[in-house]
Amino acid sequence: MTEPDAAALDAPHVRAFLPMIYVAWADGELTDQEMHTIQEQLEGMPWLDASARQTLQGLLDPANPPSARTLARVLRTVRKAAGNLDDDRRLHLARLGTALSKDDPHVEDALETVMAALSLDGAEAGRALMGGHPAPETAMPAPQFDAAKLRAVLEPRAVEVREKVRALLSDPAVRIGRDQSKEDAREAVLEVVQRLAEEGFGALAYPGVTSDVTSLEEFMTVFETLGYGDLSVLVKYGVQFGLFGGSIYFLGTEEQRAHWLPRVAKGDLLGCFAMTELGHGSNVMGLRTTATYDPESDRIVVHTPDESARKEWIGGAAAHARMATVFAQLEVDGEQHGVHAILVPIRDEDGEALPGVRLGDCGHKLGLNGVDNGRIWLDQVKVPRDHLLGRFAAITEDGRYESPIASPNKRFFTMLGTLVAGRICVGSGGVSAAKVGVAIATRYAFHRRQFGAPGEAEMRLIDYPVHRRRLMPSLAQSVAAAFAIDHVRQQYVGAETEEQKRAVEALAAGVKAFTTDHATFALQQCRECCGGQGYLSENRIGPLKSDTDVFTTFEGDNTVLLQLTAKAVLTDFRKQLGDDRVFGLVRYVGKKLARAAREANPVTKRLGSTEHLRDRDTLRGLFEYREKHLVEAAARRVQKRIKNGMEPHEAFTAIQDHLLAMARAHIERVVYDAFAAGIDRAEGAEKDALDRLLDLWSLWRIESDLGWFMENGVAEPNRAGGIRREVQALCDEVAQSALDYVEAFGIPEASLAAPIAFGEAAGV
Amino acid sequence: MTEPDAAALDAPHVRAFLPMIYVAWADGELTDQEMHTIQEQLEGMPWLDASARQTLQGLLDPANPPSARTLARVLRTVRKAAGNLDDDRRLHLARLGTALSKDDPHVEDALETVMAALSLDGAEAGRALMGGHPAPETAMPAPQFDAAKLRAVLEPRAVEVREKVRALLSDPAVRIGRDQSKEDAREAVLEVVQRLAEEGFGALAYPGVTSDVTSLEEFMTVFETLGYGDLSVLVKYGVQFGLFGGSIYFLGTEEQRAHWLPRVAKGDLLGCFAMTELGHGSNVMGLRTTATYDPESDRIVVHTPDESARKEWIGGAAAHARMATVFAQLEVDGEQHGVHAILVPIRDEDGEALPGVRLGDCGHKLGLNGVDNGRIWLDQVKVPRDHLLGRFAAITEDGRYESPIASPNKRFFTMLGTLVAGRICVGSGGVSAAKVGVAIATRYAFHRRQFGAPGEAEMRLIDYPVHRRRLMPSLAQSVAAAFAIDHVRQQYVGAETEEQKRAVEALAAGVKAFTTDHATFALQQCRECCGGQGYLSENRIGPLKSDTDVFTTFEGDNTVLLQLTAKAVLTDFRKQLGDDRVFGLVRYVGKKLARAAREANPVTKRLGSTEHLRDRDTLRGLFEYREKHLVEAAARRVQKRIKNGMEPHEAFTAIQDHLLAMARAHIERVVYDAFAAGIDRAEGAEKDALDRLLDLWSLWRIESDLGWFMENGVAEPNRAGGIRREVQALCDEVAQSALDYVEAFGIPEASLAAPIAFGEAAGV
Ligand SMILES: Cc1cc2nc3c(=O)[nH]c(=O)nc-3n(C[C@H](O)[C@H](O)[C@H](O)COP(=O)(O)OP(=O)(O)OC[C@H]3O[C@@H](n4cnc5c(N)ncnc54)[C@H](O)[C@@H]3O)c2cc1C
Ligand SMILES: Cc1cc2nc3c(=O)[nH]c(=O)nc-3n(C[C@H](O)[C@H](O)[C@H](O)COP(=O)(O)OP(=O)(O)OC[C@H]3O[C@@H](n4cnc5c(N)ncnc54)[C@H](O)[C@@H]3O)c2cc1C
Repeated sequence: MTEPDAAALDAPHVRAFLPMIYVAWADGELTDQEMHTIQEQLEGMPWLDASARQTLQGLLDPANPPSARTLARVLRTVRKAAGNLDDDRRLHLARLGTALSKDDPHVEDALETVMAALSLDGAEAGRALMGGHPAPETAMPAPQFDAAKLRAVLEPRAVEVREKVRALLSDPAVRIGRDQSKEDAREAVLEVVQRLAEEGFGALAYPGVTSDVTSLEEFMTVFETLGYGDLSVLVKYGVQFGLFGGSIYFLGTEEQRAHWLPRVAKGDLLGCFAMTELGHGSNVMGLRTTATYDPESDRIVVHTPDESARKEWIGGAAAHARMATVFAQLEVDGEQHGVHAILVPIRDEDGEALPGVRLGDCGHKLGLNGVDNGRIWLDQVKVPRDHLLGRFAAITEDGRYESPIASPNKRFFTMLGTLVAGRICVGSGGVSAAKVGVAIATRYAFHRRQFGAPGEAEMRLIDYPVHRRRLMPSLAQSVAAAFAIDHVRQQYVGAETEEQKRAVEALAAGVKAFTTDHATFALQQCRECCGGQGYLSENRIGPLKSDTDVFTTFEGDNTVLLQLTAKAVLTDFRKQLGDDRVFGLVRYVGKKLARAAREANPVTKRLGSTEHLRDRDTLRGLFEYREKHLVEAAARRVQKRIKNGMEPHEAFTAIQDHLLAMARAHIERVVYDAFAAGIDRAEGAEKDALDRLLDLWSLWRIESDLGWFMENGVAEPNRAGGIRREVQALCDEVAQSALDYVEAFGIPEASLAAPIAFGEAAGV
Repeated sequence: MTEPDAAALDAPHVRAFLPMIYVAWADGELTDQEMHTIQEQLEGMPWLDASARQTLQGLLDPANPPSARTLARVLRTVRKAAGNLDDDRRLHLARLGTALSKDDPHVEDALETVMAALSLDGAEAGRALMGGHPAPETAMPAPQFDAAKLRAVLEPRAVEVREKVRALLSDPAVRIGRDQSKEDAREAVLEVVQRLAEEGFGALAYPGVTSDVTSLEEFMTVFETLGYGDLSVLVKYGVQFGLFGGSIYFLGTEEQRAHWLPRVAKGDLLGCFAMTELGHGSNVMGLRTTATYDPESDRIVVHTPDESARKEWIGGAAAHARMATVFAQLEVDGEQHGVHAILVPIRDEDGEALPGVRLGDCGHKLGLNGVDNGRIWLDQVKVPRDHLLGRFAAITEDGRYESPIASPNKRFFTMLGTLVAGRICVGSGGVSAAKVGVAIATRYAFHRRQFGAPGEAEMRLIDYPVHRRRLMPSLAQSVAAAFAIDHVRQQYVGAETEEQKRAVEALAAGVKAFTTDHATFALQQCRECCGGQGYLSENRIGPLKSDTDVFTTFEGDNTVLLQLTAKAVLTDFRKQLGDDRVFGLVRYVGKKLARAAREANPVTKRLGSTEHLRDRDTLRGLFEYREKHLVEAAARRVQKRIKNGMEPHEAFTAIQDHLLAMARAHIERVVYDAFAAGIDRAEGAEKDALDRLLDLWSLWRIESDLGWFMENGVAEPNRAGGIRREVQALCDEVAQSALDYVEAFGIPEASLAAPIAFGEAAGV
């Protein structure tokens, strides 16, 4: 074929068919047969003039397809001729052709006939060909609730101190760059921590000693809010004031508190918390560092007996700490008294290691490189007798060991129990970090466009159902986790009796695992939802991910903590059954078990019709039913194994996976309750907004364990589709207001910090 | 009470009761009532001498409990007196007491009576008190298969080049430190890449031009094996030889190949691949950089029209690349021809940006900081006409556009299709990284001990069922993913027809998503399974995690790729139905659908009895059934929506989550088949070993989607427990040989590199 020139293409009868011809070739999927069909149709149109027919036949020859250049010219001709037709005509293949022919009635018929012969949809093909005007901007829905009011519900307490921290985070000076050596990062982080001390945020850690606050509420709230900022700062703040100072506050006597804490609070005495050893992380009882009272010198000799007993991972040990709270096996007068905490100076004023002390650097880590984690070896280091933190144990002047708690086991757990505040704090930090990630990814999803219908403006990411599915559950769970933290913090602050304290420990263990697992999950989703931009440190999600990754491990490994929770739940269950208790687990599960199991109420309203899926009784009932069922089953299994001659430890180990499932089910029920209780503080539109989140979170959790619910006859198999659809519907609803929800998190703009959160990298 | 002295405690009749008394107090859970019970029992024992009775009653007074010091002395007395009793007596409370009384028969009865009154288990309590000799080392099971033979099955091809890469990875010089600035890391990485070029690993990328290999098999195998080492090296190697050089190889003419590739292969010409823009990542068709042919100067003018069109993320652009393959919208003689690739020099020999070129640095990233990702802005940069890569399009001397593919759409997809090798490579790199993580975590799990039964040696992590559950599925899936990669690589190398090539593209998209999601999942498990040690960069898992995190995003975002796979699967399905195809999706789903759905065979053997759970027909049938079912349902849903007047794009968007589920189901079936086919290369013990892994992987995947299988009536709800138990049983079996499995990965020790992989930090 000789290529048709511009004039030939521009003849009205030719033009009329060009849209169809272009689409036919450009799509590249017309069979030869179909090309011939069009040619035949043209033959049967006597009104076509000869030159037009020749041009068109030439353009339709499968043996001799038009060149790329001709095709491009065809397109340009069409586009030019279409000029300012309105969309109705422009975007429909047959109507467009007719218009281009100057409304020749023959053409209209002819095009309809050809297209019918090819089963071609005029609208779709036309749109692909011509583009369209950009689709009207998806209008931003009017806010459905007041973000400020919602924030007040989310943050009912310690409001003033929160605002102070927010102001501080907004100061550019507290921002820590990511692209620097760990040494530089450590100095920068130290500076911020010193500033926190100066501004009185350290003193809050010691109510009644360095501050007149009455509980740790304020300190813990500061910690939570600092979680919006750099997490090395957060962790170093926690190590200095929470762990190191906290060890003195909780394990020390009045005199020891008064002596040390003012300097600790001001950051004049930098310390570290040296519990973990190379050989023993989770199993603190197995620590091997020794602390032997030497009556001759009236000193305690602290010693690292072998390599596996070296202190490992100790935040502050690599560079800044002058003093360490060392956990060691105490021996007095030849008797072993178990793990105790002893203050051991490790560096002099110039930062040099003291005699007998060897210090090492753990080195580069996945994250938190602004925290100087290090190793400590002690070679017969002698410290004064009164460096033994003396609230639960002391050595008298005449060299005798004394403790108000005779049982070493009980003493050990009482001492460890004082660390529970740290667990709550770490959980709260995880939640704050997740909120930052969710806020950034959500804002990006409203700016960023990618792909779209042919010829229309590209769609915003938030408009993709699957994107909402990836992001909205993490938004909902961030709120769920925040309510859970608030709940456990309140329980902690309010606990008075031993029993209450013990309950808080079990609760904190489970909530710490839940919230930090949430952080890992949510931040991974956020990273992926932001595509390449999520990978840039500047956009914060990467650093948040790396830094929080260890939250599932430190302050108690989650797998270990969930087992603690599980055991506490089983103990409670046993108590409910009225079993008396001797020797822990041995007489563990009574005969009353079978009866209790029979009495357990299955959830009454089944996961049936859709209208029940957003019903509090139904949702709460499902969480409760699962929990009860798993608790009873766990108790039965332990009992059976013990009856068959297994040792309790072995029995518990054998059903570990069941125990974990049970602990998780328990915690999800607790989270549900905390969330629901939190909602009760809200009203009107904000209450509705939170209800929607609770529904989403609950149904999403239930969906993810649907196998279990079906297996146990609670959900009918044919209801699964309905649940899945309802989760998507809730994601869609929540997405409408997602910007307002994240606004209610009250993250300072400086902490949001990521360019992508401000539309700067949306590249629209 | 006056505290009893050592002599009082050491009287035989006193000693007899000390174990029980110690346990009673130490456990701290005896009620006052129970203490009194013991006291009463003592009253009823006339043979006790008065002083012994007095001492004992003193020790049992709830109103006046023994001091901590006394209790410690009690313990020491017992331990000393127990001396070298054999375990049978030492570890049982009553037998121990009897022995300590010098076998007084009264004592034996008395102890039994008291213990019965308290429902106290003598064995458990005794063990808690006395410790025990360490439990005998869990004997290492004899290898159940030959790791070297297994390796040969896993690596059937390109053996020689694999070994060459392994040797290179074993050279300490190629190791890249983590704790350095990105600038230093980039130089170190460049050095290794140059060395790879020198040793001929670059030349393998261009069969028939710079190497006489006949396919990309060797190059791709090198890439996979380099995945055991530093991943910045891997990615930079991929960018230079795969993406940059590959663009010339696949999109260039014979002359262009001959002209440029020898220098590229040797690393003398460093280049980059500049496709992505700030505004367009996944949606390549929407790129906005322009390339306009200017007949006057006979040059192509390449230009960045606005900020969102700046090239973004371009590996090599920040520092090292001299030349860029720029993807831009080509315009010739006023016609638009769509996206084309053009070679644009960006730096001179001194590394300075050329006139009109502005270069920027993306900055610090979550990982891969040894790769210099950068930005490129082009201001009317002119390049010679023959810099247009000309295999699929050229500008003639007289300034006309020519292409062997007339349809711009088809041309676009043909060009993009040539990038498929990169996708396969990235997937293979993800699998290698995951293998390294799994190998390290597995080895650590065999060394590391934490917790244990009271008084026994601590348990190895691998002996905890839940630890096996966390780690073994990732081990199995690493092997599954490796077989899948091998499969798609073979398909790629063997593809000849257009149809085959298109099939490989869809397959590669899905397998890339599967394998890189696997890497993210497995490495997270590994990190957490190693506790704190997993967080140390030196132990490699952290860096592997950060570096691979972006594998789910680049070379095609997984969510986008799975949609490609989904559409390809639907197209195949339509073809099976014999539908002819015009204009893509419009005539998409025919009436034959309903019939096809009716004909689909449900899996015949149901997930019933346990014996079927390891049966190939059952497992394969389940994967196949789910795939078919989801494909048909997806087709029906699309059809319904289009019938109801939705545009196809809208219809596909509306059912995105279903499409993703379908694509995943499809790929899992493909992986199953690849795994099964791989096994057929093995025999004997190695075949058994792989069968076990396949069973584990399959059942674990089925378990994780059990809700679906129940919902669709394939799995009976009451079978769920059986499946879960079988997964655990398979984890347990695989764990027995886990060290041998990871040995078969053939990871060079230098790449394993992590101290924890060699027992150095196990701290036993
Ligand atoms: C960055 C960082 C900072 C730290 N800062 C401090 C600090 O300042 N002071 C301090 O004292 N410590 C600190 N630690 C130590 C931290 O508390 C420990 O890492 C933590 O307690 C876990 O111990 P581990 O690492 O020894 O893991 P392990 O206890 O060895 O656990 C390893 C793996 O085995 C599993 N596992 C263990 N036991 C069981 C079981 N019974 N059943 C099933 N699975 C089990 C765990 O789930 C885990 O996955 C820090 C750690 C890190 C990484
Ligand atoms: C470290 C690194 C190196 C790179 N190297 C290069 C290079 O050398 N050369 C080069 O050209 N490019 C490179 N890239 C770019 C990379 O290829 C892109 O990041 C990738 O294509 C994804 O595009 P995007 O980042 O714009 O994400 P987007 O396409 O904007 O996607 C963002 C999110 O939206 C979701 N999404 C998008 N579309 C849809 C849809 N239709 N439905 C549902 N969800 C959707 C995605 O799943 C994703 O979660 C690199 C990127 C990185 C991070």
